[in-house]
Amino acid sequence: MKINPACPHCLLARVHYEAQLSTDDEELQHKAVIGGIDVLNEIYKRGVTSGSVATLIHRKAYEILNDNDPYFKVKQQSNRAAKRLLPFAHSLIHEGNPDTGELFKRAVLASVIGNYFDFGILEFNVTVDMFDRTFTELFERGLDVDDTPRMLEMLDNVVYVADNCGEIVLDTLVFDVIRNMGYKVTLVVRGSPILTDVTMEDVRTLGIDKKVDHVLTTGSNAVGVCFEEAPDELLEAFDSASLIISKGMANYETLSERKFRPIAYMLRTKCQSVASDMGLEVGYSVAKLLE
Amino acid sequence: MKINPACPHCLLARVHYEAQLSTDDEELQHKAVIGGIDVLNEIYKRGVTSGSVATLIHRKAYEILNDNDPYFKVKQQSNRAAKRLLPFAHSLIHEGNPDTGELFKRAVLASVIGNYFDFGILEFNVTVDMFDRTFTELFERGLDVDDTPRMLEMLDNVVYVADNCGEIVLDTLVFDVIRNMGYKVTLVVRGSPILTDVTMEDVRTLGIDKKVDHVLTTGSNAVGVCFEEAPDELLEAFDSASLIISKGMANYETLSERKFRPIAYMLRTKCQSVASDMGLEVGYSVAKLLE
Repeated sequence: MKINPACPHCLLARVHYEAQLSTDDEELQHKAVIGGIDVLNEIYKRGVTSGSVATLIHRKAYEILNDNDPYFKVKQQSNRAAKRLLPFAHSLIHEGNPDTGELFKRAVLASVIGNYFDFGILEFNVTVDMFDRTFTELFERGLDVDDTPRMLEMLDNVVYVADNCGEIVLDTLVFDVIRNMGYKVTLVVRGSPILTDVTMEDVRTLGIDKKVDHVLTTGSNAVGVCFEEAPDELLEAFDSASLIISKGMANYETLSERKFRPIAYMLRTKCQSVASDMGLEVGYSVAKLLE
Repeated sequence: MKINPACPHCLLARVHYEAQLSTDDEELQHKAVIGGIDVLNEIYKRGVTSGSVATLIHRKAYEILNDNDPYFKVKQQSNRAAKRLLPFAHSLIHEGNPDTGELFKRAVLASVIGNYFDFGILEFNVTVDMFDRTFTELFERGLDVDDTPRMLEMLDNVVYVADNCGEIVLDTLVFDVIRNMGYKVTLVVRGSPILTDVTMEDVRTLGIDKKVDHVLTTGSNAVGVCFEEAPDELLEAFDSASLIISKGMANYETLSERKFRPIAYMLRTKCQSVASDMGLEVGYSVAKLLE
């Protein structure tokens, strides 16, 4: 995805947020924001990819903050909150003993709703009851773009590019359905910490490496997938996949620059830039297949 | 007020918003945002005043957009919406025939609520009923910081620094109370269009010049008041005022850099940066007097 004029202020807002997570020193917060402006000043112009700008901005902020994981606590909180809420989501998708197609669709929907929630905030401000209610509402509304029937025919060798902590816990519902059908899941996580994204360490701590067939990494802390920094085995996995599933907006922003097919983008459209780029509206629950 | 690390992304967001108001040409929108980044790159550092950065950013955007008033339509809409809603506000403050002190407090509260509403949006998305309900709720909650009893003793020669279109219509409720007490109001508006701020032309079109004793301007299209660009008569008016009333956040950001006294800041705290600088919380209705 090419950068939208709405991206720069949003990226700077995120830098400010992570600076606040990292330090109470207002001078250092200013420096992180100035670092972000420096990067924008250097590389932002029409036509650059939003993901690459995001990667450079956050790397610069982490360097200035001297902090390689400002979101560390948020990620732990997110995982705890999501684990506590998993049984409810599980019961909802299995309700009434659905057939395989319906089960897959419901699991996909649950994982897309997982992309909607900010679990780090949830732990403190939202009770389990409130989560259950919001989850149920979104679940009843269903997928606004639903290509799961076509995806169902392509599941024998899935490469699943993960997004955030918290969300990953709900992704296991999808892994379970695919593997219970006798198919294979290769999970792809970030090479090192960036934002709230899942890393190998998170996956191992959560025991999710036991719920899939392989775990690969993107090879770096790029936002989304930076192909110049990706290991060969990841590129080979993409090439040989029966279906690539890409979770969340950052993966869309980077994977949409390549022509891997078939690929399914599973996400909640949380901003106008991504929604427009996909030809959709903001606030949609999406499982969109490109063949 | 000195710039907060939260200001840069917020300023860029506003540039993006006004670029969208001004043009559908995405390339030009990019250029306006890049112009904003250029200004930040050049002058933003800890300790600069937020208002001066805002002024330069918006001037740069207007220049790039080749548009000296991107908010023109929004301002007309705001005034229309506020005029339609004025009678309800008027009846609310006069309910039960209050004494002068109570009447002044209620008029001040109404004008502070006027600072809360985005009237431009209201015209399209909110019915009169919804406005009335929200207005009533905020009115019943009252002022969170209420220095009106002390202000009441200082009203003989008020200099009133106006903020936005729409809001200005509710400010007339305050002018009426002060002038009915036999006192004088000098209204200060922007020297030329900036954001949705009131100009001499707006005041004349609305007939508000007839509701005050004098109208002066800030002498330029600076955000808030730029003293280097202000005419002598404005500085003299500030010096000889029995009370300066400053409406809204931008006027606070610039006037708080000087030591004019007594001054009353009447505003709704809409962002953390201004709220913190005033030692308050976000979402307060404020009439704060500094003597």
